[in-house]
This record gives sequence, C-alpha cells and structure tokens, in this order.
Amino acid sequence: MPLFMDIHHGVDGLTAQAVADAHEKDLAVQQKHGVKYLKYWFNEESGTVFCLSEAPSREAADAVHREAHGLAADEIIEVQEGR
Amino acid sequence: MPLFMDIHHGVDGLTAQAVADAHEKDLAVQQKHGVKYLKYWFNEESGTVFCLSEAPSREAADAVHREAHGLAADEIIEVQEGR
Repeated sequence: MPLFMDIHHGVDGLTAQAVADAHEKDLAVQQKHGVKYLKYWFNEESGTVFCLSEAPSREAADAVHREAHGLAADEIIEVQEGR
Repeated sequence: MPLFMDIHHGVDGLTAQAVADAHEKDLAVQQKHGVKYLKYWFNEESGTVFCLSEAPSREAADAVHREAHGLAADEIIEVQEGR
C-alpha cells in the first residue's frame, strides 16, 4: 500500500496533548477509509506536524484528517521509505 | 538527544539509488558530528526527501549533509515524536 507523508504548517495552539488527541481521532476513523496512520512528529513552537500513513490514495489519507478533526494537511506527498 | 526532520525540495535527478547513496555518505560522516540519521522517505517525481535524525543541534544535522554530499536541506525542523 502506498505510503504518504503529510505536513501541517502553523497549526494554532499546537501542544503535545492536542496533537495526541487529534491522532487518536484519526485512528478512530481511519479504518473506514482503508488508511493506517503510522507515526507523527511535531514542533509546538512552529505548529508543524508531519504524519506518516499507509493509504490507498492521497484522497483517502486526506479524508481521515477531515473527518476526524477537520485539520487537513497543507501537503500530502507520496513517499517510499529508504532502506 | 533532540530529533530533527529535514526536508529537501526539488532535488534534481533524484532516484532511489541516488538517495540511498547519499544516505550512506551521511552515515559515514555523522559520528564526527554526534549525529545519527535514523530514517528517510522520498518521492522520485517531485525530488522530495525527508530525513529524520537525532542530533545535538540543527547545525550539526546540517553539517553532516554538507560534508557528506553537499545537498543541504531546505528546512530542518526540531520535532518530538508522537506516542
């Protein structure tokens, strides 16, 4: 299944807890879209979040974020993982 | 040790082999800078690369790329990993 890295820039009021809560919401709805959110990394000061997911398409990965919490990513890039 | 995600945009002629070779060069010089490059993800069409590293500073992570192959990242963002 394709792998996607998405990037959220300048998320207002980002905290470790807020992003953990949003991630939980992703996990709760992802199965409906055939998506598996794998990991995420964030920076509280700049409000940046990177999410790595396995998804059938970019649209499916996007749909999970939109349905779960409404915070769509600014970019969603299909990637291969290096070995 | 702090964790950093860096992003390279629009790398010319990016292939899986080229990025694997560059990553090997990072691994060869990273110890001198106290850095550990952990993983990377890439997109051949857009020439995008994400590298995740543990480093004492942003400058140290940058120094590894500059010394190893000269392809400095466009952005280097300190991140925390989600749980």
